[in-house]
Amino acid sequence: MGKKLVSRKIIVEKIVSVRDQDEAIKFELQSLLNKKPDYLFITGGLGPTHDDITQNSIKTFFKLDEDFDQKYYDTLKVKFAERGIDMPESNRSQAIIYKNCKMLNNPKGTAKGIEVNFNNTKIFVLPGVPIEMKAIFFDSINSILPVESKNSLITLRAFGISESSLAKKMNKILDEWKSKVEIAFLPSHLGVDVRINNLVNPKINLSEIVESINSVVGNYFFGSGSEKLEQIVVDGLKLNNLTLSVAESCTGGKLANFITSVPDSSSIFIGGIVAYSNSVKMNFLDVAKDTIEKNGAVSEEVAIQMANGIREKTNSDIGIGITGISGPTGGSVDKPLGLVFIAISGKQNNKVKKFILKMDRVMHQETTSYIALNMIRRYYFRK
Amino acid sequence: MGKKLVSRKIIVEKIVSVRDQDEAIKFELQSLLNKKPDYLFITGGLGPTHDDITQNSIKTFFKLDEDFDQKYYDTLKVKFAERGIDMPESNRSQAIIYKNCKMLNNPKGTAKGIEVNFNNTKIFVLPGVPIEMKAIFFDSINSILPVESKNSLITLRAFGISESSLAKKMNKILDEWKSKVEIAFLPSHLGVDVRINNLVNPKINLSEIVESINSVVGNYFFGSGSEKLEQIVVDGLKLNNLTLSVAESCTGGKLANFITSVPDSSSIFIGGIVAYSNSVKMNFLDVAKDTIEKNGAVSEEVAIQMANGIREKTNSDIGIGITGISGPTGGSVDKPLGLVFIAISGKQNNKVKKFILKMDRVMHQETTSYIALNMIRRYYFRK
Repeated sequence: MGKKLVSRKIIVEKIVSVRDQDEAIKFELQSLLNKKPDYLFITGGLGPTHDDITQNSIKTFFKLDEDFDQKYYDTLKVKFAERGIDMPESNRSQAIIYKNCKMLNNPKGTAKGIEVNFNNTKIFVLPGVPIEMKAIFFDSINSILPVESKNSLITLRAFGISESSLAKKMNKILDEWKSKVEIAFLPSHLGVDVRINNLVNPKINLSEIVESINSVVGNYFFGSGSEKLEQIVVDGLKLNNLTLSVAESCTGGKLANFITSVPDSSSIFIGGIVAYSNSVKMNFLDVAKDTIEKNGAVSEEVAIQMANGIREKTNSDIGIGITGISGPTGGSVDKPLGLVFIAISGKQNNKVKKFILKMDRVMHQETTSYIALNMIRRYYFRK
Repeated sequence: MGKKLVSRKIIVEKIVSVRDQDEAIKFELQSLLNKKPDYLFITGGLGPTHDDITQNSIKTFFKLDEDFDQKYYDTLKVKFAERGIDMPESNRSQAIIYKNCKMLNNPKGTAKGIEVNFNNTKIFVLPGVPIEMKAIFFDSINSILPVESKNSLITLRAFGISESSLAKKMNKILDEWKSKVEIAFLPSHLGVDVRINNLVNPKINLSEIVESINSVVGNYFFGSGSEKLEQIVVDGLKLNNLTLSVAESCTGGKLANFITSVPDSSSIFIGGIVAYSNSVKMNFLDVAKDTIEKNGAVSEEVAIQMANGIREKTNSDIGIGITGISGPTGGSVDKPLGLVFIAISGKQNNKVKKFILKMDRVMHQETTSYIALNMIRRYYFRK
């Protein structure tokens, strides 16, 4: 929600979580309202269980007059009956409405949202279940917020470079701009986001700094805003009429899952093999027994044969082969923990790369998969 | 970190995020210290880039005397040189130390942590990069916190039941206990956690309520604490000497990836096929062309053939076959969006289940994978 609000030119001053305690909730409400914000979003604690106390705290804090929505209560009963369940009496609380407040329809659940206007602050009280919170947000709130502006906040997304190296390369740009606009570096194992906004100086045009950044380190940026590398790769493959299939050992399905998380990826993704055991590598991918015995399952040679095997067996344009040691055990002096080989097999572009990524198992799977996606991006689209 | 602290009998009163602004950081520090907490953990903003201002805010807020650790600075230089990089001058800030503070060694990065003692509050300032934060936590902080108590906080993890149904079934237990201990329901699409603590009444023994819960709804709970369903399934398969392989269509590798996220899962997981295209279903899994043409790729029959196919082809004890429509497009009147068939093929237990899960694509993949894992748990371990 924070990200969404920033894109609507709303500065998120504070995000705070407190305990499910009436006193704690009210103390925080008072302290937040003292700052006279334009908006205050409250989530969680509208459900029917005993620990859902937010609604009552809001009611007593703002001294709201309660009413009962018999019609909604009857609708709820029918909903439960349709699912073959007797409605628990505790759900009665969800049919409570407040005078002088706007109740916000919940398209995905039973707990309605509440809009309270207090002095000059617009307060939205929403369920904590993300899918319900989002549904109410888009249904009732989205249209009354300031219009989205693509020129007031820009996030550039980099992969394959560290935060400090990126900052060093951008040194001159930072010196020139950091007093005029807000520039934040947000690093994770899946890349570095550079977030720039002109909220304090709305007249400044951000396209100029973006241009400067692109001319110096543009190659590292795969996208902007909320774009994901997997989305960029799926779009790029579509545009270039290329199909993809993958053979994964240590990433264990993560690469396939990054790709298939993108809607309509089925138009470019033929399929994948999670070749965890050597028998699967040999039987499904035609990796030679000799090669495994001679070089080990974690080797450049096996990665290449996996990539070639999946491409040939599925008749795709690009095949990826990955083999490595994600840990936490399995390393040796020759082949340390974190070692991974990523091979790409295509009509023109055959490559294999070796990395040693010192990180925990899940991060290792994710980072390795992202390197593979970035290899596709670099060799096939960014020429 | 919050979860970790609660397991150490530390009540987390508040979690707050503020902007990278000196004034905002100091206002928040003051307001948190007014409450005289025993501990205050601060993360983020110790890096070398211009937006990393936390260290300086801490220094001026607590009026700390600065010193320079020439030895550490030289070590940093060597570290960078080893990676073939000239150390940016901005990294100089990371060799700053403070008098009367304990500097905390960072085993995974260059920014040291800081321990400040202020009145009766112990303050830890840590990097925001999770891997570095955790490393310093375990290296320098873990051993000085109160001893972990398995009897003061218990989280029971359920799957396959809604929050309100679970609360309804636990109605009598809740009535009896809710005034003595804290009981929170934490729902997500991957289950409902029931978290119970006796922090306000430390003399109360939680084993009694846990026993009551288990006797009423124990079947729904797959584990406790931070145990994950995928871990429980991998452990169960190991214990029962069973091997597993999976054939996924709509889940697109997510099920394989849940399994392979567990260390040493290679001892029970043979491999998986992400059978996104019909050609992969037919060529790798022996799904009959006829069956697809007659029933469609999303059908009970295809799910069963996928499960049988992967089990036979990989010679495993249990095969899973999944086919469905994760969306956001692809539904029809007969086969609505969210429809999914999950088949399990084993020596004795053959089952196929149909679900319609109305949720977004990624949640659909995750929930479907979790249902499959839970089917393995129910049919093979919990007899």
